Amino acid sequence: MSASTMNRVSEKELEDARRAVAALGNSLTPSMLEQTTALYAGLHDLEPPDDVAIIRDRVYGADERHRIDLFKSVSAASDTALLFVHGGGFVAGDKRKPGSPFYENIGIWAARNGFVGATMTYRLAPASPWPAGADDVVAAAAWLADNGSAYGIQNIILFGQSAGAAHVATAIALQEQKLASRGVVGAVLLSGVYDLTIANPNAVSKAYYGEDASLYAARSSQSALVAAKLPMLVGMAEYDPVHFQRQSMGLIQAISAARKVLPPLVQLLGHNHLSGVLHLGLPDDQLGLAIRLFAAGLKA
Amino acid sequence: MSASTMNRVSEKELEDARRAVAALGNSLTPSMLEQTTALYAGLHDLEPPDDVAIIRDRVYGADERHRIDLFKSVSAASDTALLFVHGGGFVAGDKRKPGSPFYENIGIWAARNGFVGATMTYRLAPASPWPAGADDVVAAAAWLADNGSAYGIQNIILFGQSAGAAHVATAIALQEQKLASRGVVGAVLLSGVYDLTIANPNAVSKAYYGEDASLYAARSSQSALVAAKLPMLVGMAEYDPVHFQRQSMGLIQAISAARKVLPPLVQLLGHNHLSGVLHLGLPDDQLGLAIRLFAAGLKA
Repeated sequence: MSASTMNRVSEKELEDARRAVAALGNSLTPSMLEQTTALYAGLHDLEPPDDVAIIRDRVYGADERHRIDLFKSVSAASDTALLFVHGGGFVAGDKRKPGSPFYENIGIWAARNGFVGATMTYRLAPASPWPAGADDVVAAAAWLADNGSAYGIQNIILFGQSAGAAHVATAIALQEQKLASRGVVGAVLLSGVYDLTIANPNAVSKAYYGEDASLYAARSSQSALVAAKLPMLVGMAEYDPVHFQRQSMGLIQAISAARKVLPPLVQLLGHNHLSGVLHLGLPDDQLGLAIRLFAAGLKA
Repeated sequence: MSASTMNRVSEKELEDARRAVAALGNSLTPSMLEQTTALYAGLHDLEPPDDVAIIRDRVYGADERHRIDLFKSVSAASDTALLFVHGGGFVAGDKRKPGSPFYENIGIWAARNGFVGATMTYRLAPASPWPAGADDVVAAAAWLADNGSAYGIQNIILFGQSAGAAHVATAIALQEQKLASRGVVGAVLLSGVYDLTIANPNAVSKAYYGEDASLYAARSSQSALVAAKLPMLVGMAEYDPVHFQRQSMGLIQAISAARKVLPPLVQLLGHNHLSGVLHLGLPDDQLGLAIRLFAAGLKA
């Protein structure tokens, strides 16, 4: 890694961010999301990296949000794409906000750590309700399978956070065979929603899943995830809101009850619902380390 | 860190060890323990470190196994001791085996990562049955509190693995107030036994806990751990034997049921019951990172 690509954030800056995140608590509010984003924005380099080639807005479908950015190391080859699916409560979010390091940080980190990075956007509720987000994850993976050879891609690991994790989970639940046939070899599910029957229903999740709670069991991915063959890393944050902790813990319990062993899992110490993905690429990063070890385990 | 203290293990060597550990599976057998130890022994430096002062065999009690080794950075001060309590099935184990890097690696890692390292031995079953091991953990912590000022120690974090975690857990269950009064501010419980009523009873655990299963509920630490105020990091290995996974998962579930949030936890991906502690100090170390973040959180 050249000097220009080393992150120059200090131990003190990381510690200050940690304390501030802890002080924000575990409520998921617009103010918490804004403050968390502000805390981490200054810790990442904003200049374009000279060690990662970025290919923007490749088109994987007909909607204007059917777009993928790709991140490729200029010096090291990889046969595995890490496809990031952002959160945003089913109704918002983007793969990239110009002038912000997010979620560019995830693509760049991936390219520097043995993957071809990929970040995608997808259709949003209420215009595109369930299962549009999951369909878009499958379509994006299929696009990578069809077009990835130009980048050396042979395998794909899906990585969703929050609503993005719910979309990845639903994609596995509804179309595991198709994903496997297109080279998807694993999934990272961070702070997602898997069992709607115990979830915290709110206006935004209803915009995606619908108002009719009698459909929630059938639209939950958890039981299919328990039965799925696809290796999954289940992630959560120490300061995830209580109802999100219940989702991750419920999935882990259901998997361990069925398989007698725990799934691969990671809890991000000192992080809230958002800060874990914003931290990716900085020192002392549990998430990146867990993803690397999970991916290495898939090849073992 | 000077060049002589940088670990020179290669990415390839780590990857080979990972594959070999995965191939060993999750059975806890003498052969597995031997092979795991052999896999990791060669990856650590065996030369005495020039950046860590080691003070051996300080005496904390009347038994010949009442001994502590201390590890202090020659360049950086710390006010927090990390006291490691080894495993060995209640009937075996030591803080150090001359000619082997274990568990010297833990003291050296601690000294290089913001702690004063400490490794202790304790009395063994069958000669010293329950709760001798827990009493010795309390005695060692008290010794550190009484004698630690010479090393700058004001706070203590207990760190037990396997039977060592069972001893730390029992010490918290029986003597939390005394531990707190002597400066114990946190505990790391890795792959321990907390609920004897669902444990896998075998000859060695019976040697410590006794043959009479009607005592096992009262000799279990889990319900006291749930009620404890002491911050605890609950650790486990991906390839822990099934009955050990059940112990960690049971503790995590009991804590989250009572507190509505998960405790700090870490799962060591790609590690078996023993390899996690043998890996400490090498690159890509989830355990060390989690302990550092847990300790930082105690000060936040």
